Amino acid sequence: MKQFRVPIELQPNLLGQSVEMRFPTELKRVGDLSEAASDTVCFLENPKFLDAALEIPAGLLIVGTQFRGHDFPRANLLWTEHPYMTFVMLVRYWLKLEEQSIPAGISPNAIVHATAVLGADVRISDYVVIGENCRLGDRVVVDAHCVVMENSRIGDDSRLYPRVTLYPDTIVGARCILHSGVVIGADGFGFVPYQGRQEKIPQLGNVEIGDDVEIGANSAIDRSTFQTTRVGNGTKLDNLVQVGHNCVIGESSILCAQVGLAGGTTIGDRVYLGGQSGTAGHHVIGDDSLIGAQSGVLGDLEPGSRVLGSPASDAGLQKRIIIAGRMLPDLLPSLKKIIKKGE
Amino acid sequence: MKQFRVPIELQPNLLGQSVEMRFPTELKRVGDLSEAASDTVCFLENPKFLDAALEIPAGLLIVGTQFRGHDFPRANLLWTEHPYMTFVMLVRYWLKLEEQSIPAGISPNAIVHATAVLGADVRISDYVVIGENCRLGDRVVVDAHCVVMENSRIGDDSRLYPRVTLYPDTIVGARCILHSGVVIGADGFGFVPYQGRQEKIPQLGNVEIGDDVEIGANSAIDRSTFQTTRVGNGTKLDNLVQVGHNCVIGESSILCAQVGLAGGTTIGDRVYLGGQSGTAGHHVIGDDSLIGAQSGVLGDLEPGSRVLGSPASDAGLQKRIIIAGRMLPDLLPSLKKIIKKGE
Amino acid sequence: MKQFRVPIELQPNLLGQSVEMRFPTELKRVGDLSEAASDTVCFLENPKFLDAALEIPAGLLIVGTQFRGHDFPRANLLWTEHPYMTFVMLVRYWLKLEEQSIPAGISPNAIVHATAVLGADVRISDYVVIGENCRLGDRVVVDAHCVVMENSRIGDDSRLYPRVTLYPDTIVGARCILHSGVVIGADGFGFVPYQGRQEKIPQLGNVEIGDDVEIGANSAIDRSTFQTTRVGNGTKLDNLVQVGHNCVIGESSILCAQVGLAGGTTIGDRVYLGGQSGTAGHHVIGDDSLIGAQSGVLGDLEPGSRVLGSPASDAGLQKRIIIAGRMLPDLLPSLKKIIKKGE
Repeated sequence: MKQFRVPIELQPNLLGQSVEMRFPTELKRVGDLSEAASDTVCFLENPKFLDAALEIPAGLLIVGTQFRGHDFPRANLLWTEHPYMTFVMLVRYWLKLEEQSIPAGISPNAIVHATAVLGADVRISDYVVIGENCRLGDRVVVDAHCVVMENSRIGDDSRLYPRVTLYPDTIVGARCILHSGVVIGADGFGFVPYQGRQEKIPQLGNVEIGDDVEIGANSAIDRSTFQTTRVGNGTKLDNLVQVGHNCVIGESSILCAQVGLAGGTTIGDRVYLGGQSGTAGHHVIGDDSLIGAQSGVLGDLEPGSRVLGSPASDAGLQKRIIIAGRMLPDLLPSLKKIIKKGE
Repeated sequence: MKQFRVPIELQPNLLGQSVEMRFPTELKRVGDLSEAASDTVCFLENPKFLDAALEIPAGLLIVGTQFRGHDFPRANLLWTEHPYMTFVMLVRYWLKLEEQSIPAGISPNAIVHATAVLGADVRISDYVVIGENCRLGDRVVVDAHCVVMENSRIGDDSRLYPRVTLYPDTIVGARCILHSGVVIGADGFGFVPYQGRQEKIPQLGNVEIGDDVEIGANSAIDRSTFQTTRVGNGTKLDNLVQVGHNCVIGESSILCAQVGLAGGTTIGDRVYLGGQSGTAGHHVIGDDSLIGAQSGVLGDLEPGSRVLGSPASDAGLQKRIIIAGRMLPDLLPSLKKIIKKGE
Repeated sequence: MKQFRVPIELQPNLLGQSVEMRFPTELKRVGDLSEAASDTVCFLENPKFLDAALEIPAGLLIVGTQFRGHDFPRANLLWTEHPYMTFVMLVRYWLKLEEQSIPAGISPNAIVHATAVLGADVRISDYVVIGENCRLGDRVVVDAHCVVMENSRIGDDSRLYPRVTLYPDTIVGARCILHSGVVIGADGFGFVPYQGRQEKIPQLGNVEIGDDVEIGANSAIDRSTFQTTRVGNGTKLDNLVQVGHNCVIGESSILCAQVGLAGGTTIGDRVYLGGQSGTAGHHVIGDDSLIGAQSGVLGDLEPGSRVLGSPASDAGLQKRIIIAGRMLPDLLPSLKKIIKKGE
């Protein structure tokens, strides 16, 4: 269970709501209901956990107004309409406080090029290498062993976990989180067969990541051939995701683990790509589309599409195909007999 | 062919068996039968290689008792019931000797936090960073460029190859092998849509890896939201495997390359997941199940299940579906004709 | 748009062709037609862009001889039969000039073992670690944070981008490009179940990469059990590709992103593996085969095969299976009725 290093101050004003205090407490931890104790913050939103919650001790139970009328005698209570969201916001606020308690500064074991421009209160850790003409915003955190190559920019409040590589000319927005092993801006995969050899097409563009983007461990986003591979504001990529060169991804989309976008894919806003799904190159996936896990998209998709399968087709049709396919082996002998009779 | 840097001592006692010496030898290498020479250790277990083995020179041929009666005139012989296993054990023993010949110590170019506790004979290589309150067991090897973040623990005799990242609070058992590029403990992929944005759910748990676990290059295991993502004793993960947050994997299971487990998957003991297969979230895969390559598991599986396909179904049924599906195109014109006639 | 740091000299002799100069220019950038300006190099090969090209300014327009007769009044012109290839060659030449303008040398923050042998004009960046008995050819570039373990060799003019790991005994040819996060030579995934445990089979071989090979970000190639895992000359691997132990890949093949080759796969020359496709172990894929995205190859393939699907079958058959499968749900009720009637 997460122990906060910084003492947690009860911050009812933060939430604009008041807390029903039954006993004094010093909140130290957060957890789920099974871990609740008199120094713990937890929440109740799902009615199926109501019985379990009635008797637990809790330093602070963030509880849905839908449960008004029930008594939670061993808990200090914060009533709210969105308990989970309130909990999330509170924890994020405390994590931020904790983060800020780590002093800013540049490790003596980091190499920052003389031409790099660093914002206020940046934290640059051991063995980091920051190249020529890079610009880091305020409060940027660059963990150990990151390599930020020349002309790259990182926006305010972004964090690079250990061992992230930004190739030259990469732009990362504000409040982004890049996890360990991420590689942004490696060459797109472009070759022309010429005289029996695969000749490399120089990859001259770059990558631009919007604000509030999170990118999972060991994911890779390639630079564009000429212009810019883009990931829009608020989009989240899980681990081991591959984004090919010249892709343009919209805002608030979700790419689950091991998704692969071939070069030149355009993804709209609020698109969901399930784990291990992929797209063939140069297609356009409309806003609000939902692509099932392990699907393979071979063409353009209208906004609001729901697809499954490899090759992907409409989710309803695909489910019917799967059900029909499962019946086929048992029907086949009879069908063959009928065909034979009919001849 | 592997050349041992340490002179190899013939160790019949190690194996509890005696060697038939035909000629004196100084064993220096191990190899397969095609590479055998008078200073080489090799083995014969598969009868199809018997003819090839009869005439080869071998410093030591580890040979199955099933081949008694055959002569191997140019080889020193060690008879055993499990030649491959005997060979494996012998080579592992020699590799361990070789490993131990490398002096322990901490590189002057490593940064070990003053509060970290290191066991006996640890070997910490160049540019390693070990954070606050970490604990390393005896004989742990941490290769160049690893980053072990605060409060992590590594058990006796484990080895981290170059460029491994352990996020805070990670626990790794004894005798584990983590290959280059592994990332353990990055944030689970958890977001709630709220007012049109994807709000990050803080990931407050950790990852715990049992004893004798091996994890392949560039694999990623995410920390749990609240509690602990677990990999059980003796389980082996190949390269580029993704284990989502809150997963619990049992003992002696095998996850082949590029497998992806969505968040909250529970995997039993001795489960085999073929390459590029995946599981949807929050399902339970029973002990001794076998999941074919590229399969997609969408539900719980009973112990001992054998499944194939995406979506996965019983392997026998899936094979019949595939065979029937391959017949369908040829049958279709006749079937349409019959339907038309019947109308 | 790519800005060259080195002034670009117009080099008509390089191409063995003369340029029609309409106005004096100092070429500084390259781009696609939409980015053309009076200091820009661009090209016209595809007739669908002809209209757009007629009016653009261009410092140098490399234009196909098929467009003779058209006027490009605002551009200096270089006529050629292969405009794209000429453009590619020109840009690569300029990139090479730019690269060579970066001074050679070894960072004072790199650790190079005393026994390592370095060619002329190598460039070894910050925090690189080069082990015992390694040999680097002339003009090799090793970027920040690479780890080259003992007995490895790198051929002339190869480049390792930041954070590449070569395990011991790895051989990399000339003119190779290894992108950030690549891991070459990690242990093959080999275990024998023995007395209820997965016993590790020592992986004693190595990896050998030919000349002119490019390997994408975070890809992994495992060492062989006894002998050598091989990647042939001119073969290109995209990001997050997995090559298992004992694989042998021929020349000029293409492995798209997230491809996985199980152990012991043999791939011929000029084979194309689409994204997220995979092969089961110990099969032989003939020269010039084409394996569709997300396919799963379960057997040997003749040279020139075209396959799709998981499990993969002939591409023509697979397309017919998919089309027939999509019709099946609508036909099923009628078919069931006919079967019932026939009973």
